[in-house]
Amino acid sequence: MRRRRTGVPEIVLAEGKTIEQLLAAIDLLLEREGRVLVSRVQPAQFEAIRTRFVSVPVRTAPSKRTLVLRRDECAVQPTGGRVGILTAGAADRPAAEEAQLVAEELGCLVRVVHDVGVAGLHRLVPALRDLVSEWDADVLIVAAGMDGVLPSVVAGLVSVPVIGLPTPVGYGIGGQGEAALYSMLQSCAPGLVVVNIDNGVGAGAAAAKIANRCAGQRRQRESSDEAASRANRSASFR
Amino acid sequence: MRRRRTGVPEIVLAEGKTIEQLLAAIDLLLEREGRVLVSRVQPAQFEAIRTRFVSVPVRTAPSKRTLVLRRDECAVQPTGGRVGILTAGAADRPAAEEAQLVAEELGCLVRVVHDVGVAGLHRLVPALRDLVSEWDADVLIVAAGMDGVLPSVVAGLVSVPVIGLPTPVGYGIGGQGEAALYSMLQSCAPGLVVVNIDNGVGAGAAAAKIANRCAGQRRQRESSDEAASRANRSASFR
Amino acid sequence: MRRRRTGVPEIVLAEGKTIEQLLAAIDLLLEREGRVLVSRVQPAQFEAIRTRFVSVPVRTAPSKRTLVLRRDECAVQPTGGRVGILTAGAADRPAAEEAQLVAEELGCLVRVVHDVGVAGLHRLVPALRDLVSEWDADVLIVAAGMDGVLPSVVAGLVSVPVIGLPTPVGYGIGGQGEAALYSMLQSCAPGLVVVNIDNGVGAGAAAAKIANRCAGQRRQRESSDEAASRANRSASFR
Amino acid sequence: MRRRRTGVPEIVLAEGKTIEQLLAAIDLLLEREGRVLVSRVQPAQFEAIRTRFVSVPVRTAPSKRTLVLRRDECAVQPTGGRVGILTAGAADRPAAEEAQLVAEELGCLVRVVHDVGVAGLHRLVPALRDLVSEWDADVLIVAAGMDGVLPSVVAGLVSVPVIGLPTPVGYGIGGQGEAALYSMLQSCAPGLVVVNIDNGVGAGAAAAKIANRCAGQRRQRESSDEAASRANRSASFR
Amino acid sequence: MRRRRTGVPEIVLAEGKTIEQLLAAIDLLLEREGRVLVSRVQPAQFEAIRTRFVSVPVRTAPSKRTLVLRRDECAVQPTGGRVGILTAGAADRPAAEEAQLVAEELGCLVRVVHDVGVAGLHRLVPALRDLVSEWDADVLIVAAGMDGVLPSVVAGLVSVPVIGLPTPVGYGIGGQGEAALYSMLQSCAPGLVVVNIDNGVGAGAAAAKIANRCAGQRRQRESSDEAASRANRSASFR
Amino acid sequence: MRRRRTGVPEIVLAEGKTIEQLLAAIDLLLEREGRVLVSRVQPAQFEAIRTRFVSVPVRTAPSKRTLVLRRDECAVQPTGGRVGILTAGAADRPAAEEAQLVAEELGCLVRVVHDVGVAGLHRLVPALRDLVSEWDADVLIVAAGMDGVLPSVVAGLVSVPVIGLPTPVGYGIGGQGEAALYSMLQSCAPGLVVVNIDNGVGAGAAAAKIANRCAGQRRQRESSDEAASRANRSASFR
Amino acid sequence: MRRRRTGVPEIVLAEGKTIEQLLAAIDLLLEREGRVLVSRVQPAQFEAIRTRFVSVPVRTAPSKRTLVLRRDECAVQPTGGRVGILTAGAADRPAAEEAQLVAEELGCLVRVVHDVGVAGLHRLVPALRDLVSEWDADVLIVAAGMDGVLPSVVAGLVSVPVIGLPTPVGYGIGGQGEAALYSMLQSCAPGLVVVNIDNGVGAGAAAAKIANRCAGQRRQRESSDEAASRANRSASFR
Amino acid sequence: MRRRRTGVPEIVLAEGKTIEQLLAAIDLLLEREGRVLVSRVQPAQFEAIRTRFVSVPVRTAPSKRTLVLRRDECAVQPTGGRVGILTAGAADRPAAEEAQLVAEELGCLVRVVHDVGVAGLHRLVPALRDLVSEWDADVLIVAAGMDGVLPSVVAGLVSVPVIGLPTPVGYGIGGQGEAALYSMLQSCAPGLVVVNIDNGVGAGAAAAKIANRCAGQRRQRESSDEAASRANRSASFR
Repeated sequence: MRRRRTGVPEIVLAEGKTIEQLLAAIDLLLEREGRVLVSRVQPAQFEAIRTRFVSVPVRTAPSKRTLVLRRDECAVQPTGGRVGILTAGAADRPAAEEAQLVAEELGCLVRVVHDVGVAGLHRLVPALRDLVSEWDADVLIVAAGMDGVLPSVVAGLVSVPVIGLPTPVGYGIGGQGEAALYSMLQSCAPGLVVVNIDNGVGAGAAAAKIANRCAGQRRQRESSDEAASRANRSASFR
Repeated sequence: MRRRRTGVPEIVLAEGKTIEQLLAAIDLLLEREGRVLVSRVQPAQFEAIRTRFVSVPVRTAPSKRTLVLRRDECAVQPTGGRVGILTAGAADRPAAEEAQLVAEELGCLVRVVHDVGVAGLHRLVPALRDLVSEWDADVLIVAAGMDGVLPSVVAGLVSVPVIGLPTPVGYGIGGQGEAALYSMLQSCAPGLVVVNIDNGVGAGAAAAKIANRCAGQRRQRESSDEAASRANRSASFR
Repeated sequence: MRRRRTGVPEIVLAEGKTIEQLLAAIDLLLEREGRVLVSRVQPAQFEAIRTRFVSVPVRTAPSKRTLVLRRDECAVQPTGGRVGILTAGAADRPAAEEAQLVAEELGCLVRVVHDVGVAGLHRLVPALRDLVSEWDADVLIVAAGMDGVLPSVVAGLVSVPVIGLPTPVGYGIGGQGEAALYSMLQSCAPGLVVVNIDNGVGAGAAAAKIANRCAGQRRQRESSDEAASRANRSASFR
Repeated sequence: MRRRRTGVPEIVLAEGKTIEQLLAAIDLLLEREGRVLVSRVQPAQFEAIRTRFVSVPVRTAPSKRTLVLRRDECAVQPTGGRVGILTAGAADRPAAEEAQLVAEELGCLVRVVHDVGVAGLHRLVPALRDLVSEWDADVLIVAAGMDGVLPSVVAGLVSVPVIGLPTPVGYGIGGQGEAALYSMLQSCAPGLVVVNIDNGVGAGAAAAKIANRCAGQRRQRESSDEAASRANRSASFR
Repeated sequence: MRRRRTGVPEIVLAEGKTIEQLLAAIDLLLEREGRVLVSRVQPAQFEAIRTRFVSVPVRTAPSKRTLVLRRDECAVQPTGGRVGILTAGAADRPAAEEAQLVAEELGCLVRVVHDVGVAGLHRLVPALRDLVSEWDADVLIVAAGMDGVLPSVVAGLVSVPVIGLPTPVGYGIGGQGEAALYSMLQSCAPGLVVVNIDNGVGAGAAAAKIANRCAGQRRQRESSDEAASRANRSASFR
Repeated sequence: MRRRRTGVPEIVLAEGKTIEQLLAAIDLLLEREGRVLVSRVQPAQFEAIRTRFVSVPVRTAPSKRTLVLRRDECAVQPTGGRVGILTAGAADRPAAEEAQLVAEELGCLVRVVHDVGVAGLHRLVPALRDLVSEWDADVLIVAAGMDGVLPSVVAGLVSVPVIGLPTPVGYGIGGQGEAALYSMLQSCAPGLVVVNIDNGVGAGAAAAKIANRCAGQRRQRESSDEAASRANRSASFR
Repeated sequence: MRRRRTGVPEIVLAEGKTIEQLLAAIDLLLEREGRVLVSRVQPAQFEAIRTRFVSVPVRTAPSKRTLVLRRDECAVQPTGGRVGILTAGAADRPAAEEAQLVAEELGCLVRVVHDVGVAGLHRLVPALRDLVSEWDADVLIVAAGMDGVLPSVVAGLVSVPVIGLPTPVGYGIGGQGEAALYSMLQSCAPGLVVVNIDNGVGAGAAAAKIANRCAGQRRQRESSDEAASRANRSASFR
Repeated sequence: MRRRRTGVPEIVLAEGKTIEQLLAAIDLLLEREGRVLVSRVQPAQFEAIRTRFVSVPVRTAPSKRTLVLRRDECAVQPTGGRVGILTAGAADRPAAEEAQLVAEELGCLVRVVHDVGVAGLHRLVPALRDLVSEWDADVLIVAAGMDGVLPSVVAGLVSVPVIGLPTPVGYGIGGQGEAALYSMLQSCAPGLVVVNIDNGVGAGAAAAKIANRCAGQRRQRESSDEAASRANRSASFR
């Protein structure tokens, strides 16, 4: 029961599975858990899943590479955790969407700002002000390919935890995301952590673990506040 | 003023610096910041630093590869963040000590359990019970070399965030920590994040960012609790 | 006559061969040996083989990537060797099936338990009890991709020989099976041996060599037992 | 209690440990287990161990890179397993010695033939005749560097299991044992398994697992034989 | 005029060229040199070349990946050089055919023996007797993939020069010919030289350079012999 | 006469040369060219050179890893080219000094600003203002290790040509300068060019080629200006 | 406004984008900047762009992998910078065309000489005479795959700056452009700078930065000349 | 008896052997073969060998890294083979000397021209005229590090066989000889063959195999010539 132990739902990696294997795996887990996250879905697989599980509500993202099937009775329990996501460019979106879906399935609120890389660097400071200073995100995921610079820049500007999500964007030597990954691992900004190239599931799960821990602390506080305020009220009633 | 912006103190990488360059760098930062963390210190460098800054209090760890110089007036501000550290074996200690020093300098409480790798796996469950269930750690750092399995195992057992810290322990192909790093990046336990091989500074800084965020949420709660309790008391006094 | 010398049948690697080359190679070996194992078969090749050798009995596995053609007169000689196979997840099955076919062609009994990786770790201990304690397997093959942790875990729990079979499952850095291979080569559990990524043929052949050696020792014992029992009987008859 | 579970004694990797750490680790394990195997011992470490544990019997090999400390009361239990070891050249001896020590500590009989590589290939066939046909080894370890060809040649000639042990001997590209390892992983002789470069401990442990399994089957047979012979004798006595 | 200087005809690499570029390149060189060798030809390119240069005689090999267009007036000048070619298995043939075509275009006689690798090793000694002892080849090309062992074995058995031609056959780590290349570069048989993976053109050109040099020495001898014999005859006529 | 053709003086790579070889090489070139640049000088080599060529003026830099011997009669011809150099941190200085010496030997003016990396990023904008806007540098060299981000940042801020000089500073994966090199090669800032890791000579020579080309255009202009001003003056005198 | 700051237009990497994403990105930038450069365009993408932006003038090159859309009102401002481009062979053209388009969009004059590699080396010296001595190029781009030798040869012959542009042409080890890139990075000709494999955009942008800097110096000179000539004329008119 | 079979003497790799192992290996082979070639000799090993075998004539080269011990009765049999060697720079000499010693031990005449790389390219054409046109070398060895260009240039200029010998000279990425090796493997000059980095023994052995084959053809011719001339003489005497 992985969900119980670590808070992450069952994940099926569609890549490399035949449609039969894939449907069987989803069937089994839907039965057992009521919810399945399918990652790296190919278009033909997507169609097959929609056809087979026509009555099960599905959530997906524009790139359709990740999807969640969830029976109605398995509503996500909102945690109040807040995950901010930034992408450097358009090619980083599929990985970011994957991270978003996973974090949301784990109960988090997610806010995303796209395209704040080199060509949109002037939009980075407002984006960070929005996500960090105003919305008070618990953690940021920063997706970037090529030279993978954006997560380092962000980690040098904010004090909330930052997760680097390298994407397989680039050319020539190091262009499948290796340059981005290595650059994040060598970051001059201490405190940047990373997941593997294109591993949006991992980034989303890690961010949710952090945000949910923070939210847990807040919830207890809020209970106290309510208690306090009740105490206060009862007090003032006297 | 990096410390202000991201919460991490100035770090001097001793490796590759002459003693003159090293002392000059420390001098400058001590003057400016009142505190310096020096990593990858060689024995000769260690002696030179102790001799030159004889009047400045120094903190270090048994491996003496990391040290912190801090003028008396720059006391660390305790944050209440709680960082748990696990090591797989004796060779993982220097990296773990580095992480511990950094997290402590950032105000965290740190609790460490050593040698819970393959040879000591029977001590892992009690260690996790101690660190997570009882002490309620905000985040765990798990240092491991060779096959780098321990962080995956831990991340599969607990719901708090886990940071994998690969160490350069092993032999042959992948034995400088690459196998451990790759294995952590490919972890089947979603939500494991990593830093570069032997990068204790990075692991400590990232853990502190997470723990301090959690502690920040708690502190506000505690203020509320105190307010509540004051309200209550004043109430009850009336 | 490789079969004579090392006990392994002729193997044709279908990958990279034209259908003409492939059929010719099978034809030649069927003529000479009466049996051929064809690995890495593509669907079109599969069809062509079935059409061309319509009268020759064929064995294959669900993934259809490996098949054995064997004339009726070339029945496999059962050895009594016992090979247990474990897979971490669904994507590891094709490699495991290949290993199974090869071991069976070499006369072994094979018992397989699927999906005992991270998501099914709770099924590992019963699986090992079944395969090792009860069935008394002579050797285990453990197929795993991603972080390749399962073979190390198994090798740390049992005293029979364990062969790690890394599979090309994963993403990003090390995701074509390299991380799994390196992790097995760096295993903290001494005594784990490995074959190349996705090399089910090699794993099956190696396991059969071990199991058949064990079975050979048993057979002699059984002959002795029979002799003893005959002696006994004749004795008791006298 | 790793020894109990998997049959392998506690191993201390001396490499990368200070003398203090090393002695402490040995002390602890000697106390707890009565026996310790220390691998990758440097000369200075060797001296320190001899001085510190002067009263504990030590076994080592000419290269002195591996040693075993064992209290008198912890005698090795002979298993009757038979491990044959072949080396290609003089530079492969330290790894082979390590494997030998480990296999012997696990109760096996070990027989070694050195220098049967390219320059001594004419000695290979007699060596195999001696080890396999006459001595009836249960398993062979073949240590080789450079092009790593010897294990493939041997695996193509015998039907007992063969473990390839690549050694860090060579020059230029692939000369730290990578060429040997890759060549063994790509072997045309199916059924060759490998351990990591220079991992004599792993090769010895794996060989012992195989040999001891075979010997276990023999022992039961022998008991039966004895029973039979007793039956017979008693029969004949009647 | 490369042909003049180094004896190698103009070569067009078809791979990565559009059909227009390819035909234009061939056209230009045919005009200038009367002969063109086209390597790595794709089926569609092959058809386009045949259609476009319908009146120019073409030589090719079964794999059709290499072809030579040569105007009638540009007959190859036989040199008398003798190149022997050995392949380990069927998958090595395309590279070997490429080498053969190139060597023949450079005037050499070529004799080929296929499939003398592991599965056909018993055919190696007769093959070498045929090529070396009887036909007296000036040089051997040995094509092999996987562990790349065959060239080393051959170079250890004969005294004529041997060129290793690694082919992209194998699986997993090193399976695109890297293991074969590294193994040849690390060969224990001194005097083995290599060309890049699948570089049949290079192997053929190098072999032809060696064989033609040898043949050149022979031709002068033969002229001398003829002179001698003429001298002799004229002498005897007197 | 390389100097004539490409404008770069003779360079002797001290690394890997015996002192005898080194002195002989310097002697020969001093004789022939009057000037030698020696790179990668070890301390013992440095002493030997100073002792042997005591009467030849020497220029070097604080790190003493590069030096120039130049007979008095071979004064550098100032070109007026302007090369700006930036370093990210103290460990980047030796490479930067090497570049500076080479550019100066090629006649350029060089202006250097150190330590404008992550920890000193607030000093980057003033540094660029000084070097580019005010001093009007023709080209910038930016030396950086670790994640190699600084050159990308600079190339995104200025329109003069920028040369990235990766340095072997970092840890773990990619820490010998590979991460920095790859990151520069993948830079999102188009127009960044690079040299090999730690190749200060190459960076200095390339920068000088660019700056001297620019200066050449200026010199012609200045001649024109002088002509114009002479014309003007004579005009105004009339 | 990247164009303002660094002189390089907005670039859209078509590779890895869906047609929708691609058209949207072009639309946005055309609106904002009036000009877009699209690189790595696939045929289907090419058609979609032409159809969608039928009224916007487009520039492209024979390989059609790069194209520029530019509204009429956004004419390129000629700078007078002169960029020479050399290619080793036909397969290097697409990268060279990309570089040419970018340099032209940045206002430069571009002159190209193709096919001066090994097979056309006799055409190199005339080509350099034409480009450098006569046309007086400010900078050269040299595109080459395989062994990447041409840029080194050119950099050893001319004193203008040379940019090496490695292309993904070759076979086997290093054949995706790595050998060419490494060879350029290790060039014996000091002063050669490089961009990543196949990065024509980067080479063109860097060359334009250099050429435009040179042209800028010339323009000021020309203004002075005009001033001088005006002064002179007015003078002579008096 | 390798010498008999392939014409190459016994070689002892000193690297990685203790002095005891080394002396024992030499002793054994001297006894058996009368001649030993020792490669990669360290200074301390060199002294020990000289001391131990004080009465055995030794040949070595200036770098003293290779030496040959040969009893007086084992004189080298001159073959008349002619091997030319070229080096790019001073750092390539040790590898070249090793090749020279080996070729001479195999009976060849060797002629060497040093330092014809980039800095001495003007000396290349005279060197080739000397070695090839005048001396009529049978084969050339070309040793080069860094970008490894020289062997390609030479192979493009001469028609005799050329062996590339990459040396571990360079810096940064590919600087341990990998760039040189890859560049030679990708050479645009077809017909270049290579040996591993720094493998002077292999280059010398391969060159001798080629040269001795050529010389063998010549010797037969010379016998014919002598016969012819004898025939002639006897004829003319009549």
